[in-house]
Amino acid sequence: MQRPSGRRPDQLRDISITRQFTRHAEGSVLVAFGHTQVICTASVEEGVPRFLRGRGQGWLTAEYGMLPRSTGTRMGREAARGRQGGRTQEIQRLIGRSLRAGMDLSKLGENTITIDCDVIQADGGTRTAAITGACVALVDALNGMQRDKRLLEDPLLGLVAAVSVGVVDGVPVLDLDYVEDSTAHTDMNVVMGEDGGFIEVQGTAEGAPFERGALDAMLDLATAGIGELVARQREVLASG
Amino acid sequence: MQRPSGRRPDQLRDISITRQFTRHAEGSVLVAFGHTQVICTASVEEGVPRFLRGRGQGWLTAEYGMLPRSTGTRMGREAARGRQGGRTQEIQRLIGRSLRAGMDLSKLGENTITIDCDVIQADGGTRTAAITGACVALVDALNGMQRDKRLLEDPLLGLVAAVSVGVVDGVPVLDLDYVEDSTAHTDMNVVMGEDGGFIEVQGTAEGAPFERGALDAMLDLATAGIGELVARQREVLASG
Amino acid sequence: MQRPSGRRPDQLRDISITRQFTRHAEGSVLVAFGHTQVICTASVEEGVPRFLRGRGQGWLTAEYGMLPRSTGTRMGREAARGRQGGRTQEIQRLIGRSLRAGMDLSKLGENTITIDCDVIQADGGTRTAAITGACVALVDALNGMQRDKRLLEDPLLGLVAAVSVGVVDGVPVLDLDYVEDSTAHTDMNVVMGEDGGFIEVQGTAEGAPFERGALDAMLDLATAGIGELVARQREVLASG
Amino acid sequence: MQRPSGRRPDQLRDISITRQFTRHAEGSVLVAFGHTQVICTASVEEGVPRFLRGRGQGWLTAEYGMLPRSTGTRMGREAARGRQGGRTQEIQRLIGRSLRAGMDLSKLGENTITIDCDVIQADGGTRTAAITGACVALVDALNGMQRDKRLLEDPLLGLVAAVSVGVVDGVPVLDLDYVEDSTAHTDMNVVMGEDGGFIEVQGTAEGAPFERGALDAMLDLATAGIGELVARQREVLASG
Amino acid sequence: MQRPSGRRPDQLRDISITRQFTRHAEGSVLVAFGHTQVICTASVEEGVPRFLRGRGQGWLTAEYGMLPRSTGTRMGREAARGRQGGRTQEIQRLIGRSLRAGMDLSKLGENTITIDCDVIQADGGTRTAAITGACVALVDALNGMQRDKRLLEDPLLGLVAAVSVGVVDGVPVLDLDYVEDSTAHTDMNVVMGEDGGFIEVQGTAEGAPFERGALDAMLDLATAGIGELVARQREVLASG
Amino acid sequence: MQRPSGRRPDQLRDISITRQFTRHAEGSVLVAFGHTQVICTASVEEGVPRFLRGRGQGWLTAEYGMLPRSTGTRMGREAARGRQGGRTQEIQRLIGRSLRAGMDLSKLGENTITIDCDVIQADGGTRTAAITGACVALVDALNGMQRDKRLLEDPLLGLVAAVSVGVVDGVPVLDLDYVEDSTAHTDMNVVMGEDGGFIEVQGTAEGAPFERGALDAMLDLATAGIGELVARQREVLASG
Repeated sequence: MQRPSGRRPDQLRDISITRQFTRHAEGSVLVAFGHTQVICTASVEEGVPRFLRGRGQGWLTAEYGMLPRSTGTRMGREAARGRQGGRTQEIQRLIGRSLRAGMDLSKLGENTITIDCDVIQADGGTRTAAITGACVALVDALNGMQRDKRLLEDPLLGLVAAVSVGVVDGVPVLDLDYVEDSTAHTDMNVVMGEDGGFIEVQGTAEGAPFERGALDAMLDLATAGIGELVARQREVLASG
Repeated sequence: MQRPSGRRPDQLRDISITRQFTRHAEGSVLVAFGHTQVICTASVEEGVPRFLRGRGQGWLTAEYGMLPRSTGTRMGREAARGRQGGRTQEIQRLIGRSLRAGMDLSKLGENTITIDCDVIQADGGTRTAAITGACVALVDALNGMQRDKRLLEDPLLGLVAAVSVGVVDGVPVLDLDYVEDSTAHTDMNVVMGEDGGFIEVQGTAEGAPFERGALDAMLDLATAGIGELVARQREVLASG
Repeated sequence: MQRPSGRRPDQLRDISITRQFTRHAEGSVLVAFGHTQVICTASVEEGVPRFLRGRGQGWLTAEYGMLPRSTGTRMGREAARGRQGGRTQEIQRLIGRSLRAGMDLSKLGENTITIDCDVIQADGGTRTAAITGACVALVDALNGMQRDKRLLEDPLLGLVAAVSVGVVDGVPVLDLDYVEDSTAHTDMNVVMGEDGGFIEVQGTAEGAPFERGALDAMLDLATAGIGELVARQREVLASG
Repeated sequence: MQRPSGRRPDQLRDISITRQFTRHAEGSVLVAFGHTQVICTASVEEGVPRFLRGRGQGWLTAEYGMLPRSTGTRMGREAARGRQGGRTQEIQRLIGRSLRAGMDLSKLGENTITIDCDVIQADGGTRTAAITGACVALVDALNGMQRDKRLLEDPLLGLVAAVSVGVVDGVPVLDLDYVEDSTAHTDMNVVMGEDGGFIEVQGTAEGAPFERGALDAMLDLATAGIGELVARQREVLASG
Repeated sequence: MQRPSGRRPDQLRDISITRQFTRHAEGSVLVAFGHTQVICTASVEEGVPRFLRGRGQGWLTAEYGMLPRSTGTRMGREAARGRQGGRTQEIQRLIGRSLRAGMDLSKLGENTITIDCDVIQADGGTRTAAITGACVALVDALNGMQRDKRLLEDPLLGLVAAVSVGVVDGVPVLDLDYVEDSTAHTDMNVVMGEDGGFIEVQGTAEGAPFERGALDAMLDLATAGIGELVARQREVLASG
Repeated sequence: MQRPSGRRPDQLRDISITRQFTRHAEGSVLVAFGHTQVICTASVEEGVPRFLRGRGQGWLTAEYGMLPRSTGTRMGREAARGRQGGRTQEIQRLIGRSLRAGMDLSKLGENTITIDCDVIQADGGTRTAAITGACVALVDALNGMQRDKRLLEDPLLGLVAAVSVGVVDGVPVLDLDYVEDSTAHTDMNVVMGEDGGFIEVQGTAEGAPFERGALDAMLDLATAGIGELVARQREVLASG
């Protein structure tokens, strides 16, 4: 078995996380998982949505988009079509839930953090790259709020990272690129906290149902891969 | 540990599946998981979406809705708001993927089956009830097509059923109702084929991340519960 | 002259009105006029729309929908298309006006009652069945508010019911089913109060204009038919 | 009893119908019922909607709009709000049905006539003025098609006109202006063919239900009023 | 060189400005530049948009529309399509900016003036006719507010008018009609204040880029033409 | 007079144009005018819009967007709001017109080029940077089509570039950044071809109208600035 990229089954793509990628946002990161590149920003605004007002806690929400030509053939622009598709909504809901799981919102004050993940180049795994990069942007934003005395305590419970796993040609593999994703029999996205607990597990049989053994193998791969991603997040955050 | 409903941790709610619930659809089922009630219809139309034309295969798609007062407090009607929310889109995509996994679309001819799942009363687990009921409506529609000689072979690969599992007060439990769902630490929806393979696994930590052990216990519960649901599907389908 | 259903020209279809059909709504009714089946719920919420605030009176509004496969061929789901069609809006405005005519809104307090009428099976006359069933759901909701001391007086002025009449093959007939509706030369929907006064009269020539004599005959049929419907409403309300 | 305008109960407002009001449309009319002014155009296009293709017959459809400041206080522009309201849709469906009742569409060829009725000044009765004026624009368009040999036969079955009637302070009156409309107990719009048959009858009790006697009196008033309107249509059409 | 209309290159079309064209609006004008006819109303409402609240100043905004059959072939109605097109938005933003440039909004109090420009017949130059006519409607509305003591000072800084210029067959010409507009190599809309200063200059090369000399010649023509239009505005305003 | 950035009145910001910025598009450029950064891609697709079919010519269209946090405070995402705002539409129409002016569409075959300009960081002048960068992406796409023999001739008539000019504190200045833009009395965007002809001139008085002399001075500045931008475009294109 040879992966198209020549990687070992348990090998991540080249990962890079660039902080302060743009200048306006409180946190701004360019994350790359191989050729997949996503701009992740964290924006801080005072106030919370109506359903949370007066409870003294904060909120975090996420939005996701793809530039029309981030993909091999041009996709219609969602703003022009007048609605966000089901896939977009599914992904932005996932990003929001995942990052909220890494925070104690009661320590955020009545502030809202909006995460924007915009894919500028897609090659598989955009949602997992987005979560991994957005978490770094979020930490930068939270640190800034603490420096500015807008927060008394750190709301961060722990880093959050994500990776895809799948079964390609019968072999469980880590961090699928687009070519592998297109041929995978099973596709799974796993989000974990830095302590190794599961935050989200989403597996889909693309063809035949998959067995418990394959599920276990994929979870093992994901656990190891996320360990590496968290190490990279820590390293990047320590550098600046 | 006492479940609010008095059920054992591994006990399903009362399940009922009523075929021929309405008269126009090729397949029409009222499914109840306890107080959760969903009307599931399967509609057959000639032709396939543009992206499949000329390939000689069929398609299956699903839509999901909730009556505004299926819930404890009235929800706004999506048709009036002018858009389907993210949750709705997520669920209808899940239903469609799950049922397609149970079919060989190449044996369907250039026909499209549209599954409609409309919740008339909600008490937790609407999406898993919908999948379980819709599969029976689908079988009725496919059998009708075979009787009418619109199909030469049976496209059904196997029955598909779904159930939710979760961890409530530290205990893994099967088939959560609304009260349990609201307090669960972890919430998981599992879709399986009748042969016991996984089609979809979607787990979410509502609070703290969950451990591999909890995941394993939930998957065990789901496997047993889906076994019972498939038995019920078979029994209902055999009844005529 | 023989009606397709074998009914006499002045004969209603089998009418059934089932109260407490679902458990969450303050009033919940399944109404059937023959094969036409509509779920009608009445939901009570505190507050009134902006244009009524501060006047000490209440409001009643109605929404209408059809399940996509309530009809012989599947209709597109309005939530998916992103807008309610003209027919839907016309019908829900009619239901709202008709039921408001049966109430003294000044006795409702600053509360809003929302009527939802969702057709689960259509065979002609869905709007008239909806009005007739929704009135019973409304009475249940109002009685509940009085029991809970949320109202000091009964806002109900009188029961409201509706029926269709038409001219088929030159003969005026009562309560048209879908087959008759499709061939009628004239189609008329009549809403009346229990005292026999007219609330709405909507007649349309489908082909040639109709004469005053035909109009008079249809109004006579409708008056008698609504008398029977009101008797049925009273009977059902007395039973519970 | 004195009407605010000083008119007799059975007296129409000043009616004017100006043909060739704008230059591009195949039929273009400015109709005034007192201060109510509506521009009505009939546009001819080749082809028919999909549901009629290949049947050799034509189609007529209508759209209705109000300039934002046609009314006493400015209304939001429907194009800016992104949807046509229920009232607009109800009225344009009524105009379309009414004019189709005056035509034999099988003689129109595969052509579509679109009627546009745009209210530039509103003072009650905009829909009835629109129908009455649009019929004249339609006749001009049909005559033009015959002159250009686009039609072999005249599709017109007869002129169509409309008027409102109501009960104000207990007295049945004809052709209500805005002040009367606001205080009417009953409001009715009647559309008739030139031969005196009914095409549409739409009556609504604004307060208490109305009795059969009031209905009869209103229909008598409407019949006489529409007779006058048809005479005016004929006179205007003969003049040019 | 002969213009299709026989006009000299520096000659405006016949201009007419009719005040009090409709009765409800605070200012109401029908403006005609040859066959181009636009109804312009100015509506006064208390209050300002959220972004201006509490600053003690007013606001002016504009909306633009075309009746569907104002043009040679029928255009779809924007209200029916559910969105205003790019051209509409561009024009209404231009009208708003242009008229705000003629006002001192700090003297308007917390009031909003909404300008509606609705084209009833189009023959080129609808946006420049709209600005020229709307300015007169605006003056009427402001004068009315002063008469009613709703304003202490006159917010008007000066009249504003607009005209199109272009290069047709190599010759710079003033106030293009539709035929000229369709064949122009360059098309320019110029808005000026009554003192001769520029408010907006929008020039577009339709084919080859245009030279500075052509630009200068067009600006000269526009300056003279707007001088005439302002004279006509003054004359009309003095008459009433 | 001192510009906030310390630049001379006739000095551009630092300009950088990076080709092959992303890998999927036929042309992909990151353009920076100082802190303003825009990703410009050119996508080639076979076929043309309906209104051009069968004429043997091609088409070019453009779309524009801003990442939500490209600006100092987060803007709502247009895809989430469900419509593109007036400013967006104005800009994308401008980009499309400007680039079409630099092409002979009859030499493009029945192909459509879609330009996407997505602002990742905004500091004034996003539309002029977009045009300048998109032209380079367009040239790369056209060259690629020629290499692949998809085109027989080069459709490019000449390079197109754009710059803003304005009057700040009474002094005409070139290439305004956000701070200057916010305080400018006059704001003008100029698009020119490489031969020095004007393609678009759009000037707006933000406060008082501007005089012909100021207009002339701004056009002189723009002409010189665009000369520099075209030189930079040529240099970058020659390098690869």
